[in-house]
Amino acid sequence: MSDNNSFAYAAVREAISEQIQHGKLAENQPLAAERDLCEQFQVSRSTLRQALSQLENMGLIYRKNRSGWYVCPRKLRYEPTRHVSFLDYAVAQGFTPTTRLLSVQKIKAGAKLSQLMELDGRSTVTALTRLRAVDGRPVLMEQIYFNQRHFPGLEKQDLSLSINAMLKNHYHHHALSTQISIESCCLFTPAAAHLGVNDGALGLKVQRTLRNAEGEIIEFDEELWRHDALVVENHAHIQM
Amino acid sequence: MSDNNSFAYAAVREAISEQIQHGKLAENQPLAAERDLCEQFQVSRSTLRQALSQLENMGLIYRKNRSGWYVCPRKLRYEPTRHVSFLDYAVAQGFTPTTRLLSVQKIKAGAKLSQLMELDGRSTVTALTRLRAVDGRPVLMEQIYFNQRHFPGLEKQDLSLSINAMLKNHYHHHALSTQISIESCCLFTPAAAHLGVNDGALGLKVQRTLRNAEGEIIEFDEELWRHDALVVENHAHIQM
Repeated sequence: MSDNNSFAYAAVREAISEQIQHGKLAENQPLAAERDLCEQFQVSRSTLRQALSQLENMGLIYRKNRSGWYVCPRKLRYEPTRHVSFLDYAVAQGFTPTTRLLSVQKIKAGAKLSQLMELDGRSTVTALTRLRAVDGRPVLMEQIYFNQRHFPGLEKQDLSLSINAMLKNHYHHHALSTQISIESCCLFTPAAAHLGVNDGALGLKVQRTLRNAEGEIIEFDEELWRHDALVVENHAHIQM
Repeated sequence: MSDNNSFAYAAVREAISEQIQHGKLAENQPLAAERDLCEQFQVSRSTLRQALSQLENMGLIYRKNRSGWYVCPRKLRYEPTRHVSFLDYAVAQGFTPTTRLLSVQKIKAGAKLSQLMELDGRSTVTALTRLRAVDGRPVLMEQIYFNQRHFPGLEKQDLSLSINAMLKNHYHHHALSTQISIESCCLFTPAAAHLGVNDGALGLKVQRTLRNAEGEIIEFDEELWRHDALVVENHAHIQM
């Protein structure tokens, strides 16, 4: 790419970025068609696509159903150590969250899951897959693994509702400790398809291990997020 | 892309991924040249590149100086709420960390920085830019902004060393509180060039606000990480 072109895509990127950040393009509003944008900015299709691809990485626009480009809504701000549920923090931030239960099954914990959950090889876990959306836009797919032993009668629960509320109100787990990790990840099918991104696109992975007061792992979960939908926050006091 | 091709790139991706995960290819070791890999897997150059690009997103391989592809080293595990310094946690994990001071300057805090640091518009801050590497591979570029008022004589300090140690030993800040946010970001020049990634590539951004015992913001910093170099960890106790 010539210097000329790299100047051109950066200029288009900045122009659209400013329109979004100054509110001239609203959340979830479609951008103009690519051919119109080429004409408006007097650039080639490949220069425009370079700019759009960077705006996508910046978390400012996203593609939907091959119908074009849309302005990203604000990111959700999520403080995993506060253990407020997805539903509560989404609502508190003005979003309308929804949860779709994709599957529930009892499975034998294989080698990897047994290690993660400190189980012996013969243990059974209940595996739950859910898709969560805000304002109709899917933002994360999660897999939750419950250690069967700590969740008698789990099959009778409504697993599309808050797991936090179930832990507390039905299973009376009050004092828990969590271990959380956050990193970049690659989104493959089926997660990529559910989240409306290309197979192999970058996302964010949040893993969480939940222990009861006795230190036993009762639940392990893995959330795969669209990269443009999440800010993880954390407050702490430090004694240096 | 036909089903045939998508099967082909996934198969190549899985084959190389297994070689790396089973230790047949060591950290920082180069992959074979692209043309040799095409021959080995009997695929076209474009199918191979699809596989390599996904392995890059998976954090398993990285490009260096246009000299080809290399196996990623393990990620650094970083627990920001423990406030252990970069140097200490890197060494504890068996890495050799280095820090390069790129620039130090006194600047007028503009509108955005004044808001982030709760300063009035006329305040001066010292802005520090550093590049940090592990085992010779740059992994993060950081900008640190010091509220001048809390750091008299800052210009006489060696700012390539641990800021934590300086805060504690020289400025006697012992009890601090931090507010941290972690999200995906876009890496542009100069960060992209320093980190050896394409202009506009996805990375991870860690922002941190440091307050003294009186609740005043004494420092704000922003770390831009290669997406493949970092796992953020967190432990917490929860009262539900």
